[in-house]
This record gives sequence, structure tokens and C-alpha cells, in this order.
Amino acid sequence: MAAGAGAAAKARRTDEQARIIIFEKGPYVSFANCGLPYYVGHQIKERNELFLVTPERFRQRFNIDVRVNHEVTAINPEERKVEVVDHFTGNTFIETYDKLIIATGASPIKPPIEGVNLNNVYHLWTVPDADAVKAFIQQNKPQQAVVVGGGFIGLEAVENLLKYGIKVHLVEMLPQVMPAFDQEMTVPLVKHLRQLGVEIHLNDGVAKFLGTGEVNGVQLASGKIISAPLVILAVGVKPNTELAEKAGLAIGEKGGIVVDTRMRTSNPDIYAAGDVVEIYHLVSGKKVRIPLAGPANKQGRVAGANAAGGDLEFKGAYGTSIVKVGKLTAAKTGLNEREARDAGFDYQVSYTHSPDHAGYYPGAETMMVKVIFEKSTGRLLGGQIVGPKGVDKRIDVLATAIYSQLTVYDLEDLDLAYAPPYSSAKDPVIIAGMAAANILRGEVEVWTAADLAEALEKGEDLQLVDVRTPDEYREGHIPTAVNIPVDDLRKRIGELDPHRKTVLYCGIGYRSYLAYRVLKDKGFSDLGHLSGGYRSWSLTLPEK
Amino acid sequence: MAAGAGAAAKARRTDEQARIIIFEKGPYVSFANCGLPYYVGHQIKERNELFLVTPERFRQRFNIDVRVNHEVTAINPEERKVEVVDHFTGNTFIETYDKLIIATGASPIKPPIEGVNLNNVYHLWTVPDADAVKAFIQQNKPQQAVVVGGGFIGLEAVENLLKYGIKVHLVEMLPQVMPAFDQEMTVPLVKHLRQLGVEIHLNDGVAKFLGTGEVNGVQLASGKIISAPLVILAVGVKPNTELAEKAGLAIGEKGGIVVDTRMRTSNPDIYAAGDVVEIYHLVSGKKVRIPLAGPANKQGRVAGANAAGGDLEFKGAYGTSIVKVGKLTAAKTGLNEREARDAGFDYQVSYTHSPDHAGYYPGAETMMVKVIFEKSTGRLLGGQIVGPKGVDKRIDVLATAIYSQLTVYDLEDLDLAYAPPYSSAKDPVIIAGMAAANILRGEVEVWTAADLAEALEKGEDLQLVDVRTPDEYREGHIPTAVNIPVDDLRKRIGELDPHRKTVLYCGIGYRSYLAYRVLKDKGFSDLGHLSGGYRSWSLTLPEK
Repeated sequence: MAAGAGAAAKARRTDEQARIIIFEKGPYVSFANCGLPYYVGHQIKERNELFLVTPERFRQRFNIDVRVNHEVTAINPEERKVEVVDHFTGNTFIETYDKLIIATGASPIKPPIEGVNLNNVYHLWTVPDADAVKAFIQQNKPQQAVVVGGGFIGLEAVENLLKYGIKVHLVEMLPQVMPAFDQEMTVPLVKHLRQLGVEIHLNDGVAKFLGTGEVNGVQLASGKIISAPLVILAVGVKPNTELAEKAGLAIGEKGGIVVDTRMRTSNPDIYAAGDVVEIYHLVSGKKVRIPLAGPANKQGRVAGANAAGGDLEFKGAYGTSIVKVGKLTAAKTGLNEREARDAGFDYQVSYTHSPDHAGYYPGAETMMVKVIFEKSTGRLLGGQIVGPKGVDKRIDVLATAIYSQLTVYDLEDLDLAYAPPYSSAKDPVIIAGMAAANILRGEVEVWTAADLAEALEKGEDLQLVDVRTPDEYREGHIPTAVNIPVDDLRKRIGELDPHRKTVLYCGIGYRSYLAYRVLKDKGFSDLGHLSGGYRSWSLTLPEK
Repeated sequence: MAAGAGAAAKARRTDEQARIIIFEKGPYVSFANCGLPYYVGHQIKERNELFLVTPERFRQRFNIDVRVNHEVTAINPEERKVEVVDHFTGNTFIETYDKLIIATGASPIKPPIEGVNLNNVYHLWTVPDADAVKAFIQQNKPQQAVVVGGGFIGLEAVENLLKYGIKVHLVEMLPQVMPAFDQEMTVPLVKHLRQLGVEIHLNDGVAKFLGTGEVNGVQLASGKIISAPLVILAVGVKPNTELAEKAGLAIGEKGGIVVDTRMRTSNPDIYAAGDVVEIYHLVSGKKVRIPLAGPANKQGRVAGANAAGGDLEFKGAYGTSIVKVGKLTAAKTGLNEREARDAGFDYQVSYTHSPDHAGYYPGAETMMVKVIFEKSTGRLLGGQIVGPKGVDKRIDVLATAIYSQLTVYDLEDLDLAYAPPYSSAKDPVIIAGMAAANILRGEVEVWTAADLAEALEKGEDLQLVDVRTPDEYREGHIPTAVNIPVDDLRKRIGELDPHRKTVLYCGIGYRSYLAYRVLKDKGFSDLGHLSGGYRSWSLTLPEK
């Protein structure tokens, strides 16, 4: 959608003389997919706002012939022809081309589950989908709803259903929401959604949709039954490759159309762009499908330029994404841990917590930053951030750093904009770089909260030291920890055994880093501190 | 301040055994300089918030001996000794060192103008300064105030004086505020300040401060007289190099202490950091002084580590900075046009206007982005942004791009985070990259608003075409422009003469770019469009 319309417009800008036709199967040529959940939630109030460019505009401004409700049903690459069905008239006709751009997008997956075709089981992928969901809510004022799938669309659906005061159940087969993220970074989202009253069913799938004619509930694999007259299915999308496959174009290992960096398919006269293609991940070097609007727009522009005789390149993407969940924002760029492992990187992670702007200026809020970086070089491989404010800014800085193949040492050196309303003299990204670089320089060794939880569960012999103040310790601490405030550490060092394995922690990891340096100097041989401190411990460990 | 305290703390983290002393001439060892205007304006409510680290904290946590009201009056590099005056007792004593770190900072410039020493002519540089200004306002409830100097501190002072309902006069010798910015990017700030009721006197200096004992007004070079019982002087700072000079350390062309990338001065046992040094500008390669908290913090950390036996490097900075002015934010990174010229770059500029997030999601506001880039390579040399929202994010992305020596072509390819509340599928930075790269690829030629204004003033023979709608045209257009909406251009092309010099413009530069492509195809030989469109024209041209 984004890709096709963008491709056509760019083709026109590249060649004023070309004859350009857009065939669009559905009724709308360009609409704001990403806005649909917000339209349902009435945050986007005017339906018109969803339509980015009308066919009329295309005709007048771009001299492009837009035919909606026209479906291309076959491509004949040898003769450079397409077969088109006009759904207005039912007629089929043949159109020729010099260059063809395929931007058939993706479709939401409809899992083969009993009852999936019941009424009021919706996707949230097209304007008619959104219209239907909105109409259903307004007419039926449902008390409960089930959202199946905890990815972007699922969470945005939840967020917007909450606006109606609906009790929402979120069902997700994985042990986490937002599967592109590392699990521990999604725990704050789950906790926050639960605070907002959402019932979250992780590690559980839909066994069947209940009801006759209309859905009236869902039975989960665990046996749980949820009553609800409204279900939104958001379990992912699959690329619409049927046309390309029938035309003999190469389909890749990830199920998308294979294209080169000029967005050219295996046929030199056919380009493809958007959710239907697979592309290079710029960090892993692997082929991936990233069905997001940002890459789709860029690909469309490149395909359109090249099809019309220009020369642009789309090198790839690296999975930058963001989602708003209640008061929190969660964002990711580059590789997550699983992807880093799969790509063969020997990596290290580091967690930091930093205020979005100077703590002494009103309104500062703390975000959690995770960076994943290569041990040998310090190269930044990925970043994930969760917090109430300023997350979008820092993820884009990290995204730019990843594009540029910066290291965590480089992050320390970034000259970012500071004034009290906007950041701190040491921006959260710089803090993340410093903490990571300190690890690589051997100034400190870190444990993750997960490492520590596992060691404690196993009953490992550990000297766990909470270096916060007694007040902080009293308000909550990690089991088995003794409390020696960092300011007293030098004089109370005799209370600790330098030969035992020792882990230090504080609030966010700064005081424990100081304490680490003190104990290291005193000959503590097996020493670590908790990356991100008690805050990481309490935010990221899943609730039992 | 930031540099010295940071250096000491990092030295401790680097060497637990070292004996570390901080001598601080004034009463406070570490305070939030950048917060002072906001403390005056009561946005920072608690005075305590200004103190980042107390001497007691330094002692307990870092085992650092902090001596406030102790002034180092001489350095003897041969004997590695410093002479210290204890202002509590008046005693002078000698202290030895192995390594010395100079972080004497900068002092506000007091121009040698008649009456500058009158009471109630204040700087806003230290906590006592801020205390005095705040006390004066609270006790005397002034109706008017004069701020001299339109840089960061001057504008922040204006902003905070406005909180009291004071009529503020801003006096600036240059034809613009924020001298680090290009003039046209500061025009929106001046207009906005005037809307807020600030009286701005550009191209004018203070001839004398009026009054006896206490200031009661200011006479400007232009002869204007402003009555006001309160003056804040913010005309820049000078590095406190006296100690270093007396000790024979090398002082550079920019008047700061010369240091290498390890922050080592010309004496191998003496380091320096913060406002007192000069550093490399990472884009121009020239020596500069950048008295800002971000670089100072980094330098302090590096100096502290190296003085204590570590090995860190500070490569330089590139002038990233940001200021809040009423509802607007203005930010800059890298070189401005003058700096780019001085550094010998053959550069091009481009202006774009983009919403901070998807236009269809509520609350979007438009920012103006200027990029400066090398013609031959496309390398990004500088960026400046002004707008109500999301400016800080985009300047940090540009700052990261400049650090990474990215080109404007790279900006097109950045994979930035998009969801409707945060950005658009094409982020403002990506749009800026596309517009700039389109110029370099020869897809379009641009005029700046200043170029066009000059040509019109000279009465150049120009075919100026406004391609917006008739409604937009009627609401205001550039003199001499004819109106042919882009959507009608193909059919009305006969109204234009392809042999005349032709400049196209629209709202922000997108429709005129489309129109450019149409006319180019039709053989218009001397063709350009207005970068940033009518919006740039109306925002950036100075008021007469």
C-alpha cells in the first residue's frame, strides 16, 4: 500500500512521460494502516484522516491512472502482460507493461482454529476491518473483548479497546508480548497492561472460538474459557506472494519475493516492494521480512525510481520499531539476543536506567535501556528501551548508531544536545555506552538479573551485597542479600569474604560499580555487579 | 565544575589507592549551572536540587578530600606543587601533586561599559548569582528587566523572567539571537519572543547602564533608553586560564588551554578539562572552545581516568546545542554556514518542514529542518532545527549522523522508529535527507528564501510561480508570483515561458518539486524551486 503508491509517485517524478497505472484490488489506494487501531479507539476522530492520497489526487497531481477494485490475477513475464479483473464490472482484460512493480503487501494470518470464521472475529488490517470493529463496539457496547496476539497490532488494539472501558483479554502463545523484543524488556509492558486492567494470558493459545453464528467467547489451550462478543485476531501477517509465485519469480527462504538492492526481482522487468519482499538485515546480513511502514516506503521509492529509469538503492533495514502501551513506550532497533546468537555474534548485554531529562528539571522519568554489543569489537548490535518518556528519541539515536556501525565506545563520545528540559549532560545513550564500554575495558564485570535469579534458584554459594542505603534495603531487596551501603564500604569491608563469589547491586548499577572498584582493589577475586541494579531486578523478572 | 567533579570521581574509579583532593575556590563543589535560569524562574522549585554532589558525599563515597573556599593561586610545574589560599582562614599553604587536573572553567564576560558595576546588574553563572536575581525579583517585583545578550543564557533568562510577568527587553549587538545558528533559523525565535511580549533590540548594544548606586535603566548605542531596575548580563564567557598561563602551559589560538586527546596539557603531569580548554571540532578539524556541559563532562571523565593511570580519549565535539524559547525549541549540530565556509567546504543547504509525528494522529506540529552538506560527497556538515515538538530527537539523530560522517544519502536510508504517536513513516530526518539528496542527484535545483528575496529586491527578471491552491495563494503569497496549482500545471503549462528564468514554490517544497519535474521535462532551461517553500519564506525572513 505504502510501497505501491510511493513507487508510482516516485516513478512519475523520475519520468514525466511514462504511462503509469496502479491496479488496486481493494477500494482504497493509499491509507494509513498504522492509524487503524487509533481510529478504532477514536484518537483519530475523522475517518477521512486515514486516506493519505485519493485516486483523484493521483490522477491530477501525478498523472497516474489509478484503478481501484481492479485485481491483477496473473502476470505473464514473457509477454510482459498482466491479467486484470475489474471487480466493478466483472470483466477480465489484459494490460501490457515495460516495467512492473509488485506491491501486493501482506495479509493477516487467519489460524485454522475451530470457529475462526464466526462473526465478530475481526482482523485490524484494512479500513473496512476498522469500520467493522468500530461499528460493532458502538452498536453493541461490549463489556469484554479478546485480542489474540501480543505484537504491535495486538497491543495497539488492546490500548484502543481500553479507551471504551472494555475489559480486554490478551492471549499470546509465547511467554512474552512483542516477540521481536527480548523477553525481560517486555515484562514492564505486561505489568503495566495488568495495572490498566488487561487480563493477559501468556503461554496460552486459542483452542477454539465459541459460539454459533456470532462469537461469544474463546476457549484457550489451557482450558480457560473467556466470554466475549468481540475478538481481534492479530497473530501476524504473511506476504501475498501468490501472483509472483505463479509468474515464476524467485521466492526466498523467508517466504518473501527475492529482490536485489535495486528492488528488482529475479525477472529484470519486474520490481517488488513492501511487505511482500524479503530484504537484508543490515546487522545480521541475513534475509528477513520486516513488514513495517518505514522500510516499505523506502522500498517503494527505490522501486519506482528504478522502474522508471532512475538509480536508487535500498540497502536493507534492521528492525527498528516502536509501540505505545498505555503510559509506556517500548522500542527496539537492530538485533535482539536471539537474533544476535543466530547471526553468530559473541555478544554482551548491558542495562542502564536514566532519566529522560535532567533530574532537577521537573517531570523527569526514568527509562530502561538495554544494549547488545559484540564482545571483541564493541560494535553495537541492538538496543531496546522501555519507559514513559523520551524512548523514541534514544531508539532513533541507537538506530542511527547501528546504521553507522558505531561501537559502544563511540556512544560514549556522541555530542548530543543538552539543556535541562531535553536531556542530561550525559544522555541515556551516552550512559548506556559508558556502562557497556566499562565492561569491555575490564573495569567491571556484570551479572544480568536473569543470571542472578538462576544462581539464587540453584542455591549457588554467593555473597550478595546490597550497597544501597538501609532505607532502600528495607523497602525491598533481593533474597539473601546483606546490606552494606557504598558510603560505608571502605570501613566495613572486613565483613565480607574476598574469597567468596561476590555479587554487588544497588539501585541502578552506579553505586555497585563504585563498590566493585573498591572491592576489586582489595583482592576480591570472583566479583560481579548487577547490570541495571535492583531496578532491573524488579522490572524485568516475570511475575510468578 | 562538571569537569572537575567528574574528573575526581573517575580518577577514584580508576585508582582506589590514589590520594585525591579537590580545591574549589567558591563555596560549592558541584552544581547544576544549566539549571540556574530555571531556578530563577521557579521551574526548579527547590534550591537543593541545584547541588549535584555535596563535599560530604565526595568524602564518603569517593574518598575524595574536597576543600571548598580554597583557591589555587599558583602552580609550580617543576616541583609539582600548588599554592593554595584557604579563604576560611586566610592562610596560604603548599600542596604537592603527582598529577594535576585544571578545571577552572570560564567566567562570564563583564564588558567595560559605563555603569556595569551598578547594583542589580547581574550575571547568571553561579548559585549566588541566581540567589541574588531571585531575591531581587521577589523583593522588588520589577515591572521591567533588560537582558543583554541573546545566546543560551540570555534566552533562558528571558524565558524565566517572563514567568514573573516582567516586561523583558533583550539587547543583542548582532542582527540575530543565538549566534551559533544561521540567522534565518533564529528568525522564528525572535518572532515568537515578540509574540510573548519581549521587546527585542537587535543590531544594538548597551552604551551605558544608567543610575547611581543601583541601575535604573540602560542606554543603547542607538540612543534608545530603557527604564529597568534589573539587568542580566549574558554576553559570553571567557576561559579562566590565568593559573595555566602563569604556570607556562600552552594556550591556544582560541584562548583555551591546549590539550591532546588524552586531555593532557603541554606539561605531561598536568591535565585540563571543561570550559578552560580548547578542543577539536570533529567536522571542521579546527580548534574551538565549546563551553557546554556535555563536552565538559566527557573531558572531565577522560582527564580523571588518564591522570589516575587509565587510558581514555576525548576526540572532540561538534557544537551540538539546544535551547527552549517559549513554545519553541531550537537546536543545532555540526557546522553552521559561516563555519562551513571558514572550514573551506563547498556546501549546499536544504530546508524541509515536517510534522513531528503522523499528521493523522492528534497533536502533530511542524518543525523546520535545515541541513548543510558537502556538494561533492553529500557529507552532512551541520543541521539546525526549530519547532514546537520533537526537535531534540531529530537534532540528536543528526548529531549521531555527523559523528558517523554520514552523507545525506545515508539519511535517506536510516531505519528509524515509526508508529503514529512518534513519527511518520518518513521521519523528518529522512525527509531532510531525501530533499538534500534529490538536489545532489540533480533531480531538482533549489533557491533559498534569501536568494529569492535578493533577486526580487534587485528586480531580476523572474517567472515566479506559486503552485499552491488558489485559496492558499489568496491568503498570502510572494510578490510578483503567479498562481498555477500543481494539479493544473500540465494543462496550463502554455501560460509559462520556458525560456525565462523560473522559480516555483508551494507550501513547503514538495508540490513545487513535482512541478519542477513537469517543467523540466517540458524544456524549461533555467528552473529552480524554493527550498522549504512559502513556509520558509514567511518563517525565516527577518521582519522589516
